[in-house]
Amino acid sequence: MSDPNEAISPEVQQAIDAVRAEVAALHAELVRYGLVIWTGGNVSGRVPGADLFVIKPSGVSYDDLAPENMILCDLDGNVIAGSPGSDRSPSSDTAAHAYVYRNMPEVGGVVHTHSPYAVAWAARGEEIPCVITGMADEFGGPIPIGPFAIIGDDSIGRGIVETLTGHRSRAVLMQNHGPFTIGVTAKDAVKAAVMCEDAARTVHFARQGGELIPIPQDKIDALYNRYQNVYGQSTDARR
Amino acid sequence: MSDPNEAISPEVQQAIDAVRAEVAALHAELVRYGLVIWTGGNVSGRVPGADLFVIKPSGVSYDDLAPENMILCDLDGNVIAGSPGSDRSPSSDTAAHAYVYRNMPEVGGVVHTHSPYAVAWAARGEEIPCVITGMADEFGGPIPIGPFAIIGDDSIGRGIVETLTGHRSRAVLMQNHGPFTIGVTAKDAVKAAVMCEDAARTVHFARQGGELIPIPQDKIDALYNRYQNVYGQSTDARR
Amino acid sequence: MSDPNEAISPEVQQAIDAVRAEVAALHAELVRYGLVIWTGGNVSGRVPGADLFVIKPSGVSYDDLAPENMILCDLDGNVIAGSPGSDRSPSSDTAAHAYVYRNMPEVGGVVHTHSPYAVAWAARGEEIPCVITGMADEFGGPIPIGPFAIIGDDSIGRGIVETLTGHRSRAVLMQNHGPFTIGVTAKDAVKAAVMCEDAARTVHFARQGGELIPIPQDKIDALYNRYQNVYGQSTDARR
Amino acid sequence: MSDPNEAISPEVQQAIDAVRAEVAALHAELVRYGLVIWTGGNVSGRVPGADLFVIKPSGVSYDDLAPENMILCDLDGNVIAGSPGSDRSPSSDTAAHAYVYRNMPEVGGVVHTHSPYAVAWAARGEEIPCVITGMADEFGGPIPIGPFAIIGDDSIGRGIVETLTGHRSRAVLMQNHGPFTIGVTAKDAVKAAVMCEDAARTVHFARQGGELIPIPQDKIDALYNRYQNVYGQSTDARR
Repeated sequence: MSDPNEAISPEVQQAIDAVRAEVAALHAELVRYGLVIWTGGNVSGRVPGADLFVIKPSGVSYDDLAPENMILCDLDGNVIAGSPGSDRSPSSDTAAHAYVYRNMPEVGGVVHTHSPYAVAWAARGEEIPCVITGMADEFGGPIPIGPFAIIGDDSIGRGIVETLTGHRSRAVLMQNHGPFTIGVTAKDAVKAAVMCEDAARTVHFARQGGELIPIPQDKIDALYNRYQNVYGQSTDARR
Repeated sequence: MSDPNEAISPEVQQAIDAVRAEVAALHAELVRYGLVIWTGGNVSGRVPGADLFVIKPSGVSYDDLAPENMILCDLDGNVIAGSPGSDRSPSSDTAAHAYVYRNMPEVGGVVHTHSPYAVAWAARGEEIPCVITGMADEFGGPIPIGPFAIIGDDSIGRGIVETLTGHRSRAVLMQNHGPFTIGVTAKDAVKAAVMCEDAARTVHFARQGGELIPIPQDKIDALYNRYQNVYGQSTDARR
Repeated sequence: MSDPNEAISPEVQQAIDAVRAEVAALHAELVRYGLVIWTGGNVSGRVPGADLFVIKPSGVSYDDLAPENMILCDLDGNVIAGSPGSDRSPSSDTAAHAYVYRNMPEVGGVVHTHSPYAVAWAARGEEIPCVITGMADEFGGPIPIGPFAIIGDDSIGRGIVETLTGHRSRAVLMQNHGPFTIGVTAKDAVKAAVMCEDAARTVHFARQGGELIPIPQDKIDALYNRYQNVYGQSTDARR
Repeated sequence: MSDPNEAISPEVQQAIDAVRAEVAALHAELVRYGLVIWTGGNVSGRVPGADLFVIKPSGVSYDDLAPENMILCDLDGNVIAGSPGSDRSPSSDTAAHAYVYRNMPEVGGVVHTHSPYAVAWAARGEEIPCVITGMADEFGGPIPIGPFAIIGDDSIGRGIVETLTGHRSRAVLMQNHGPFTIGVTAKDAVKAAVMCEDAARTVHFARQGGELIPIPQDKIDALYNRYQNVYGQSTDARR
């Protein structure tokens, strides 16, 4: 655990409280869209203005999640001693989330699920081709595969960062494992998780029926650029 | 934006209010039937007796839709300045809806979704064959494919109108994109969207298992004619 | 319509009221199990002690169904004039239900849906093979295909009766159309509709993965006989 | 029925009451995750400190389950006369549950469902290969197939015990029938049922798309060992 004696400013405390509330609430979206079962899956959010992030506790039911049992960690994934929820263990994927926050400063949220269609592509180690305009909008091309890596060291985090750095996609399918998504905010990462499963499912259905029609690269570029700059309201989650 | 100084009669205002309420409420059907995720998809409805239509705002959550944040547009897709909701952007598909209203005066409602089975057929550019009596009833034959077109000009609207004009089907699958449906009313267009996804799904399942039995054309004609004229109550949405 | 002047005894009236309530409520099970969309599908129930049955009105939303808008018909499918709901049209499948009641006196309920996996088998004209013990329990063998027939005469009703008479299955898949199920009571017919779609779905999944293992006929017989005689409480819907 | 005159100590009575409440409530999880339809499926839980277990009544709707209609049985599957619910028949799978409790003293809960993807593998007699890390975590390898056996003697119970004894998996797919799962507690067995269907579904999707990448055995071992010892809170259902 981190040193509990380090003082936290009122501004940071307010930011922590806001992220706790947001991260706790966002887990309901994973349930709503069928991305998780039992206690699987997790959302985290970076605390703006501090080297901290908030993440789901390990093995706790979705019905029981609340702002006060979310767990506050430093960027090495250590629980902040004495903070609310610190009597519980954080998600077993905490090290991977922490690695992403340490190495991708532009990332404000990370999500991990075992959503079934995305995992199916991951079990074949096959990227999802960009054959629907909704994928072009959201991911700007295919959703890539990351390396096979298991819990225990930095290898999952490293695989996520190496795959997504410089890539348009905010989702990576870790081989034989499942999707990790990133976003400017935790909400944006949750949106990417929802859209990733939708793309995985729709392209799965499409390919079952025969040959897919590719979308020309210049059209993918045009769709992606428009969507990133024009879509939505100015209060949109992504900006 | 359109000229805000043009006077709106009490009759038209009443019609606008009714369409706002109807269009806002109909979005719940898209959620209920699993046709949309996150903020995707949109319903619009023509205002009877005026060159106006009402459409969903862009990028707003389905939980937050209400009559007063629906957006009022003229038939060129311009937001009516000063009207409720006019501080927000309308759906990014507004130009396509407007094109349909300008060119198909019999159309009172338009719906667009990325419902997964319909998009799967669209990604292959393959029309849905009419092998079930429910499709014959509702669409009178196959559900056709429209051209590949992307946002930015009139090409989506033109593709919808060119494909559906003179066609029995109220649904078109725009290639690599997804379904657009039209109807006499907004509710009728929503029904077409629900039935289109159901047909896309059922025929997908059917074909996975082997050869489909075609329905003779004269039987399709008989089913379609009966359904358009006899089915339902006289207060049915379609009449 | 039938002669409204025929007197209805208090006993029959009580039976009618009970069947109205039961049939209205049972429609919720079709929604719960995803067997119907929009206003499609219908349940009917025979009135014990009278040549009457109660059926859903045509084209009315599932949210709006109530005992008083169920429609009372004689066994020729004519609406009983002056009875509650008689200002509306009965389900467009009323003639098929009536034919079943006229020709199968042991039948107390009939259900029709377009549930997607069952329709998929129907579109191929392929019976569902009995490869799971749950099907052996419930249907005692395969679920058969009925002839292609369209609305307009007795051909749907005749197809149901000819296929199911002397057959263990309470479900028939009318070719290119969908399942009709029968039961001792309306609830039993609804159960058959739920179990039919479950069997259609599960065997569809099973066959997608490769060769199915058949169940020996004597084991199917043993399972069917046990289930019909032992399963459930003595207050079970089927007895 | 067992001898009703055998005295039950207050401690055992308290344990019985707790298991009744737990088992009744856990059935809702089967519904929530779509593992059961109509009255199918059942959960049982061993009473700690007594040769007793609590199981669902036969053929009763999930909406009507409550602690007081759960049925108390001895380890031969006989209903304890005079106990609450003893006027009803226990689940028709009671003999199989009893066999497991008699022969696997470490088992505290048993679950049986006809969840569709698991039954699909069972209809082919094909074990689910361990190609996703979530399966390695939870089951430590493939989910095995048990023998074909039908109700009427000990053969289902024997098949479960022979397949799962000494196996890492807490789930067995009985051929042509469906999954049975065991656990340290009833909740743990329910978790295994949920995870079994998820694995069955995800690997089904994965294989539809092409070749699966195997996970090396030493990685499966590492994942399984970590998950059994580290995952979750100390109040986790499994410990």
